[in-house]
Amino acid sequence: MRDVASVAAMERHFDAAFRAEFADLLVWRRDVRRFRTDAVPEEVLDCLFRLADLASSVGNCQPTRFVRVDDARRRAEVRVNFENANRDALGAYRDEQAELYAKLKLAGLKEAPLHLAVFCDEGTGQGFGLGARTMPETRRYSAVCALHTFWLAARAYGLGVGWVSILDPAEIAATLNTPPAWSFVGYLCVGWPEEEHRTPELERLGWGTRTPHPVLRR
Amino acid sequence: MRDVASVAAMERHFDAAFRAEFADLLVWRRDVRRFRTDAVPEEVLDCLFRLADLASSVGNCQPTRFVRVDDARRRAEVRVNFENANRDALGAYRDEQAELYAKLKLAGLKEAPLHLAVFCDEGTGQGFGLGARTMPETRRYSAVCALHTFWLAARAYGLGVGWVSILDPAEIAATLNTPPAWSFVGYLCVGWPEEEHRTPELERLGWGTRTPHPVLRR
Repeated sequence: MRDVASVAAMERHFDAAFRAEFADLLVWRRDVRRFRTDAVPEEVLDCLFRLADLASSVGNCQPTRFVRVDDARRRAEVRVNFENANRDALGAYRDEQAELYAKLKLAGLKEAPLHLAVFCDEGTGQGFGLGARTMPETRRYSAVCALHTFWLAARAYGLGVGWVSILDPAEIAATLNTPPAWSFVGYLCVGWPEEEHRTPELERLGWGTRTPHPVLRR
Repeated sequence: MRDVASVAAMERHFDAAFRAEFADLLVWRRDVRRFRTDAVPEEVLDCLFRLADLASSVGNCQPTRFVRVDDARRRAEVRVNFENANRDALGAYRDEQAELYAKLKLAGLKEAPLHLAVFCDEGTGQGFGLGARTMPETRRYSAVCALHTFWLAARAYGLGVGWVSILDPAEIAATLNTPPAWSFVGYLCVGWPEEEHRTPELERLGWGTRTPHPVLRR
């Protein structure tokens, strides 16, 4: 039996003005590496976590596990992890490309007031495995959907997020002492951006340009 | 040198009204399995692809490859693929849970007017491997961000998306004859939903409930 409120709600419609602003949110979302050091208010952060809870997950298993990293020693280990991985990565480039790579700022680990590691609990019992039998990687993809939801919501609040992937995942798990069934998905630096741009920093600095995704027909 | 427009644009701000409506978009996004059969307008679809182009990707490598599946024979193969995988999945449940599983409608492959397979090109040269050396899976995660952007944008247009994962990925690649370097990420049914709900079908039918994601401190 439906009451009036639920019938009205059954027709939730988003108009052209909202769609234009949503498109702007996508345009202005950036991978941020340059942060101010002032704190993210706790009430905003709580709100971002609750919005991330709404993300799609396979069989509604909600395998995403957020780990907020506050401890100075652990943060220092993460920075060393990044610096080592970044030095190795630099070694794979030559000549002008290596010079350019060395100049890129690829993480805001020192300045960002909030560090957030995102994991996927591969062993979660929630959802009873529905949808993940032939493609267990969809659990990790679900954690990516939650991470991405957090990111977009943060941008709507004016917060910047930088996804750091130049890391040894096994070392991250050791640093954060997470359960063995948790897979590391990504490490986020979160804070107020020093500046905002419509264009990715990698594009502005000449690393590469973006292209439309191909759409094939079959 | 900045002109007036770019200075104004540097302060792109999203207000509380937009944030409330964006939260509603997340609340009303659903995994849809019940579609009307009328077509998705091409101009809307083009717009969704262009919005998905704005998604984050590691090193801006944009590895997402969309494959639009129109051919009736290929669609029939995908349906058989799903039916086989779903029968195997059912075999893993017992008693009441098996009875409930058998009643669930887990895909809208027959009705949905648009079928879209999403792949990740693991071999893309774009971005020159930046950010993906220690975690090559971030390329697939980038495709998930594009898929998720497409999904949210579709909902803003009133379209429903259902992510089908109960499939054998190798058979999908064979059916769609995709390049060997492409990893299958997900298969989307897209169309106008028959009905809209704030609550996931799996929750309404008693398969399981959602919970807030845990946030640990370290």
